[in-house]
Formats: sequence, structure tokens, C-alpha cells
Amino acid sequence: MPDLQRLKLIVSYDGSGFAGWQSQSRGDTIQDAIERAAAKICGCRIAVHGAGRTDAGVHALGQCAHMDVPAMKLPSHRWPSALNAHLPPKIRIEKMTRVPATFHARFSARGKTYRYRILTTPVLSPFEIGRAWHLRSELESARLEEAGALFLGKHDFAGFAANRGRPAKETVRTIERIEVRSRTGLVRIDVSGDGFLYKMVRLMVGAMVRCALGKEEVENVRRQLRDPTFRGARFVAPAEGLYLLRVRY
Amino acid sequence: MPDLQRLKLIVSYDGSGFAGWQSQSRGDTIQDAIERAAAKICGCRIAVHGAGRTDAGVHALGQCAHMDVPAMKLPSHRWPSALNAHLPPKIRIEKMTRVPATFHARFSARGKTYRYRILTTPVLSPFEIGRAWHLRSELESARLEEAGALFLGKHDFAGFAANRGRPAKETVRTIERIEVRSRTGLVRIDVSGDGFLYKMVRLMVGAMVRCALGKEEVENVRRQLRDPTFRGARFVAPAEGLYLLRVRY
Repeated sequence: MPDLQRLKLIVSYDGSGFAGWQSQSRGDTIQDAIERAAAKICGCRIAVHGAGRTDAGVHALGQCAHMDVPAMKLPSHRWPSALNAHLPPKIRIEKMTRVPATFHARFSARGKTYRYRILTTPVLSPFEIGRAWHLRSELESARLEEAGALFLGKHDFAGFAANRGRPAKETVRTIERIEVRSRTGLVRIDVSGDGFLYKMVRLMVGAMVRCALGKEEVENVRRQLRDPTFRGARFVAPAEGLYLLRVRY
Repeated sequence: MPDLQRLKLIVSYDGSGFAGWQSQSRGDTIQDAIERAAAKICGCRIAVHGAGRTDAGVHALGQCAHMDVPAMKLPSHRWPSALNAHLPPKIRIEKMTRVPATFHARFSARGKTYRYRILTTPVLSPFEIGRAWHLRSELESARLEEAGALFLGKHDFAGFAANRGRPAKETVRTIERIEVRSRTGLVRIDVSGDGFLYKMVRLMVGAMVRCALGKEEVENVRRQLRDPTFRGARFVAPAEGLYLLRVRY
């Protein structure tokens, strides 16, 4: 058994055309692609552990992962170009560093930041296909911010989570920052928190947008945050507007 | 013969995957796609005339064109969504307006502005595939600007033109503005002129970049501008970095 060393990866990907991060039998996920590339370099199966799953169509600018590779194979700074040579261009390893064996991409993570992009132009730019939620109507920033501010702090987010077959056991999360920036035709919502439930950001953005469009009362968002069984403001924003920006350790 | 009315179109497209603007027998061009969409609406063949050709892989944010359609068919403001419904999402009609029959997209044009995008990041972002020239080395802005400034004003650009089978007869053009903007990892070069020869912008940018990389003397650019038979600084920048920004009338 050769000595192993643990490497941390920063990964960016255009999620369109992939079945998400998490490995699947069909093999068309980001994790599968990176594991195949690593296996080509190492000549043996290498497991890649991500900081968290992203759904089909969701993008990343700073997904994190770790993997254990045979020591001495390659110095860590040469790994990114070696992996990139075997990866499709829509997946790029931005950076790799050696980390202690106690580091775990998922369990060591202390928080994440997501960005959600919404386009409000009448026509969807050819350069934005699959990269934003295209709404044809302008959004009232003040209403977005008012609804978004309700999520700040520590809450039980059970009402803003989708089930993956079974409900999550622990649904209390802390949102540390939520920032809405608007310029003509584009709204960007950045959300930082200590952790996120399944589809939580998309459900939060969905609720904010419905408030901004006047289709939902801000009061109903507040109510759903208090009472998970209340399903008034429940709307899942599309995957293609969501970007995992960074993972904090 | 029904009354015809002339419409001006503003078109944006992601040129990757298309064989350029100009109609071809294979039919995989932007012009072919718009003519097919217009024919579906009008029930007869409609010719679309562009302000100029763009090559395979070249993009547009504000290509202009005109077409004559049977009057009363649709008010001009409803045309964009009608055409877009029949077009692939990578081609979008941004705007259409009624113009006098004396307007001609190509012959009435008084100038054009192109943008060229260069990425100098070590890794090509998954969101920039086919949308920029990826150079792995930083470019010296001062050298780009020094070389670019040589093109300003009225010159014979025969030395910065590719032949389409036969050389252009009239090769004097005026460059009104050339602007280099750099920020970390990205260089944008905007060029405005009264007209452009075949591959002229790409040859200009190619020469500027070779100077900035220290692979060419600025003096050779000056010489090639004076003497078209001198081929020292000749380098065609790739199509995917080029965007037709707007046509001036």
C-alpha cells in the first residue's frame, strides 16, 4: 500500500449538460468526470469527496473537494493541468493544494456562499442560455431585500427544503449574509450561511421573487419560516441561475 | 404583388456552432436561420441583408440587417418575438423598426464597432469556452496600446486584410477609435472604424498581441501598414474572441 497524500481541489463548472455533482450509475456527473480523470493519472480508482452536492444544471465557481492520491505521483501544483487535460472544458480544476489527512471537504466546511442570477431583459441574451433565470418582468429590489432579510440569522429552514426521499433530521441553519444587487436587466443575490438544506437557496430565491412580483405576501414568507407545514410561498427557482461561489473552512 | 415594408433588425448571436453570417448551401449560417424563420411567418421566401459578414465562430451583440416583408402582416414591434419563436436560442432578434425603402443595412452603414476579448488567466473558465482568445500569459497594456495607436486614422489596410479568393479593390479605411481596457485576467479591445476589410480586426489584434508578447517589434506593424507586401507582423487572432458590437448609420 503506497503512502497517500490528501489534496484539496477548487473546481469550477458549467453545470448545463451534467446530472449534477454527485456520482450516478450513468456516470454523467461532475464527480464521475473528475474520478475518471484522476484514475487515468493514477492508474487506480480514486474517490473524490465534494463539499456538497449541486443539482443538475447548477454551476460552480468555487466548489471544493478532496481526494487521496499516491504520494510522489505529482507535486500538487502540477495536478490541476494534469486533471484538466482529461476533463471536458466545462469542468476546470482551478487550484489544488496539499492538506492534512484530517481535512474533509464536507465535514470541515464551516460555510458556503451561493450566487443566484436573474435576468429581466425582454430577450434572453444568446450568451446567457442556461446561466440565469430569465424573467421578463422587472423586479422591485426593495421587495426582494425585504423578503430576503427575513432569512438572516438562525432559523429552522424545514419549510425551505425539498426532501430527498426522507426529510433532513437537523434543519436549523444560520444565514450570515444575503445581498441583493441590481443593475439594468440583471439581479444578483448572494447568500452566505453555515450550511444549506436540499434546494434551500432555490426555495429562498423563489419566495423572494414571488414577493417582488407581487404574487406573494412577505408575511407568508415569515409564516413559512415559523411553520414548516405552511406551504404558501413555496416556489423552487430554476437550477440554471444558481452558482456555488465558495466554501469556507 | 402585395405592398412591402422594409424592417431593420438588430441581431445578437453566439457564433459558436454556426458557419458565420453569410448564407451557404449547407444552411448552417445566421442569415439562413433568420431567412427560414421569416419564411415560416410570411409563407414565402424572405431575403435578409446583413450589414456585413461575420466569420464562423464570430459573435454579435448588435449586428444589423434589413428585410422587406408584406405590409400589414405584423406590426414591427411584434416581429422580434415572432422571429425568435422560430430561431435557435443562440440567435436573438433584439429589436426591429420600420425604415424607409432607401435604407440598406450594408450600403447605408457609416461605421462599425467591434470588440475583441482576450483572457489571460492560467485556466480557461468553463463560462468562457468559445467566447474569448485564451492566452496563458499576461499582456503588457502599454505595448498593446502603443501598437494599437498606429492604426488610428486613415490608412491603406491592404497589409491587414485576408483575401476571399480575390483581393479587395479599395483598401483604405479610417479607424476612429481604438480602446484597450485591462483588468485581472481580461483584456478588451474596442475598435471603431468607417469600415473593415476581411479579417482586418483579427489581423490588427493579432499584431497588437504579438507586440505585447514581445514576439514582434512595434516598428514592424508600422512597416506593414506602409507596405502591404511586408508580412512580418501578420497573425490572425482566433474568431471566438471577436464580437460585432454595433453598426452606425
